[in-house]
Order: sequence, then C-alpha cells, then structure tokens
Amino acid sequence: MHEFRTRRRVEFVDTDMGGIVHFSRFMVFMETAEHLFLDALGFAADEQISDRGIAWPRVKVACEYRSPAHFGDVLDIELTVLRKGRSSITYGFRFGTDGRELAIGEVTAVCCELAPGRPPRSIPIPEALAARIDEAPRG
Amino acid sequence: MHEFRTRRRVEFVDTDMGGIVHFSRFMVFMETAEHLFLDALGFAADEQISDRGIAWPRVKVACEYRSPAHFGDVLDIELTVLRKGRSSITYGFRFGTDGRELAIGEVTAVCCELAPGRPPRSIPIPEALAARIDEAPRG
Amino acid sequence: MHEFRTRRRVEFVDTDMGGIVHFSRFMVFMETAEHLFLDALGFAADEQISDRGIAWPRVKVACEYRSPAHFGDVLDIELTVLRKGRSSITYGFRFGTDGRELAIGEVTAVCCELAPGRPPRSIPIPEALAARIDEAPRG
Amino acid sequence: MHEFRTRRRVEFVDTDMGGIVHFSRFMVFMETAEHLFLDALGFAADEQISDRGIAWPRVKVACEYRSPAHFGDVLDIELTVLRKGRSSITYGFRFGTDGRELAIGEVTAVCCELAPGRPPRSIPIPEALAARIDEAPRG
Repeated sequence: MHEFRTRRRVEFVDTDMGGIVHFSRFMVFMETAEHLFLDALGFAADEQISDRGIAWPRVKVACEYRSPAHFGDVLDIELTVLRKGRSSITYGFRFGTDGRELAIGEVTAVCCELAPGRPPRSIPIPEALAARIDEAPRG
Repeated sequence: MHEFRTRRRVEFVDTDMGGIVHFSRFMVFMETAEHLFLDALGFAADEQISDRGIAWPRVKVACEYRSPAHFGDVLDIELTVLRKGRSSITYGFRFGTDGRELAIGEVTAVCCELAPGRPPRSIPIPEALAARIDEAPRG
Repeated sequence: MHEFRTRRRVEFVDTDMGGIVHFSRFMVFMETAEHLFLDALGFAADEQISDRGIAWPRVKVACEYRSPAHFGDVLDIELTVLRKGRSSITYGFRFGTDGRELAIGEVTAVCCELAPGRPPRSIPIPEALAARIDEAPRG
Repeated sequence: MHEFRTRRRVEFVDTDMGGIVHFSRFMVFMETAEHLFLDALGFAADEQISDRGIAWPRVKVACEYRSPAHFGDVLDIELTVLRKGRSSITYGFRFGTDGRELAIGEVTAVCCELAPGRPPRSIPIPEALAARIDEAPRG
C-alpha cells in the first residue's frame, strides 16, 4: 500500500485569532494521518517488537500553505509514501476541503528502538511492516 | 514558602478565533507556574529520588474566567499553596493583567512514583520538599 | 435533548512525557463534544444570528481525573445538560474507555454576541436552540 | 537588523510520550521568536496600520530535527532574516541547548491586511518596518 485517505473536522481549538487554523496544527494532522496509515497496515505507531518499544521520530518536515482552513471544515487528507528507506519513510500529504486545496506537506520519520534512559536508536523498519508498504510510482 | 509570583506573555498560538486566549491554555499556565514554584524550592517537577522518577499528576482542576486575555498581554500569575497533605498539594492561582482580574483557578496534584510499565503510585511528598512548603494562612 | 454521546481516539500529540494524556486536553475534548452536541441540534457553535456572530465563552470549568488515558484509547464521552439558564448552559461530562472511568467534568458556557472591536456581550440563548435543549432530570 | 536571539524553557506540555519535545512545538517556538523580533523593531505582530489590522500568515515552513529537546531545557533560538521581499520575509532559525544543536528551520511569512469577512490580502511590508529589517549577508 502506498496511499491512504482520511478526514478530520477542524476543531475550535485548532484556530487562532486570525480566524483560521493555526499553521502548526497541520503538523499534528500529518502525524495522526500517518498513525492511521500504520494502523491500516496492522501496526500501532507505538508497536512493541519483541519486548522493545518502537517509535517514529521525525527528522524533517515541510509544509506549504495555499489557502486557509476554518472552524468546522472537513479536511480531506491524502497520504502518499514517497520513499521507503531501510529505516526511514518519507510521506507526502495533500490537504483539501470541499475541492479547494489547502496545503501540501512532506515528512520523514525514522524507525527507532526505545530503551529506557537512552536516546532513540534507528533500526531497520520491521520486515512485516516493510513488506506492506510500497513506494508510490514516480510521476 | 506558600506564595510565588511569575509572569508570562500571551503567544499567538494561545489565542482562538474568538480573538482571546483559549480557556484550556490557563491549565497550562497553572501547571508551568507550579513547576517554576517547585524549581524555586530547588526541586525539578521531574525530580529523580533515589533512582525513581517522581511526577505530579493532577487529580482535580477548576477555573473561573472573569475577563478575556489577549495576544501580547503580560499575565501576572500568583500561586498560593492552599493545602499541603501527605501526598498531595492544592494550589490556588490568580491571573491578572494590567490590574484587571482575568481568572482564578485551583489544582490538586499528587506526588507519584513512576516505575516503567506500571501506573503512577502515590507516595509521600519527599521530606526535603515538604519541609520547604507551607500552607497559606486561612483567610 | 439533554444527553449526547460521542467518541474520539487519543492522538500522539495529546500525550506528555508521563506517557498519558495531558490533563489540559480534556478541556478540549469537552469543548468539541459540546460543539458536536450543538451541531446535532442543528446549530453551529459559531452560528450567525441575523447578521451577528454568536459564541460561547466559558465562565467556569472543572474536571476530576480518576484514571489516566493513553495513546490510541478510544474515549467514550457522555455529555449531559445539567442546567439551562437564560443565557448560559452548564454541561456535565463523563469520560471512559473500555468500561474504565477516566474523568468527570463540568463546564458553564455563556451565549454571547460578537461585535467587531468590542468584548463579547451575553445574550439570551436563541429561542430555536433553547427550545431543543432540555435540562437533565435531577437524580 | 537581521539577527535576533531569544531563549525559552521547555514546558511539560511541550513534551510527548516519547519523553521529548513534540516536533510541532518547534513551529510555535519559531513563530513566537519572530513576534519578539518584530517587537524589538517596535512593531506588534498584530499592528494596526491606519485603521486596518495586519497579520503575517505563513506560506511555507520547514524544519530539520537533529537532536531531541527535553523538559526543562533552555532553548537558545537564533533568528536570521534570509530574504526580505516586497510583501514577504523568510526567516531562518537555529535551535540549540547547552551547545548541542537541536533543529534548524525556515519560515516564509507574508504581510497581509485583514478586513472583516474577507480573506487576508497581501500588502507591501509597512515602510517604517521594512526600513528596519536587513537581509543577512549571503554566506
């Protein structure tokens, strides 16, 4: 699988005094869409693999804002796997509402092992998960 | 010590489309003031006590909002220790800006020991800390 | 109508370094449940009434935390109208997951008219809305 | 002026269950640093210019995360004006703590006029402000 779609509705707390969704919230929208994508593949974002926790810290994010989103808007979120590396995945995101494009983003997350008291250490993406993720065909 | 004062400036992200500080942010303002109070007594909010981490989960919070706060306002925050129990502390908070009262709040936090993989367990407030905290005289 | 139920799933960003949902997020969960309740009655939380915007600033909130919520938990949220006044509504909330009680809360919101450049002014709850809201029977 | 430095301390609410600062918070740290930079030049981020409000919506953001930040860390934040256009400013940011590099970011904000009920419209940066902002020399 290399594509996934989800929706979420803008909440009041997502907005700022400019009357629109605060730009930092799109970071959260991307992360949660990524977690739902992993779920759809049968993996929790905080999966335990043979007694070790894994996590996916971000190493790089970017977002371009094309049009503002407002309270109550239903966001159409499209996730695409742009690149699958040995330890990392780069996702692309498109946000729209009602046919209007809102934003496009890109996030690179690295699969890491968590051990108490130590910094996260990058590990290969678990095989069972890697086997279920494809890269999107280059356009 | 049973009183502590601090200040913080309202950030853009604290506001919502109503043009005022979102009510949930006062919860954060109270928590951070509490942490600065503990710091002033020489204790980190995530202190390690003989190899165990401690934490202060909240069991009860309340807040009354009297007047809205706006972007750029400098908030005067006054913390008072209302009650000190064996394991818990109840704090009172007053928020104002420029002499105008904004909100009053109350929070009860419980001193807990953290052990990996187990829920937090309440413990007596460490003696060295308890000795430095007084209850405010009842008014 | 005086009761409403909704669900939401805990997101990664809702958690803190204690490994549980940050207490301030329950404030957001309550607000959004309230907005969905108004929606179910046919009113947007930011309804326009004859050219004026209305809003529902909170004047009082309280919450008791009984058990921690974790990433991925599906929260069952139960809203009850405790009191309906001329301009205000007091809501009660119960949060649970998987049959375990997490938190109970109470929020009083006041119906206000917004005019540019002026502070919100309380107004009677619009009749069409008031007619659709009942108080819960006292238990 | 084309450089500005500020500091902020990581708050508990900035962290997530991974035990580190949530990546989305760096977006907020960048925005607030930008507002403090404008303040230092004598301009509020929500300045009124001859009866019209101005605002600075973001059109593009990016961030690379090099090392995690933790609760209580004091962040050293360095802002640089990379490009000053007619209506837009591109800022670069460097985050460190205790000599360790944490993250680097880039944000493009556009000067906009706000009129009630209409979407923000880009305008030239007010002259008095533009005169006080220099581009950093290309390195």
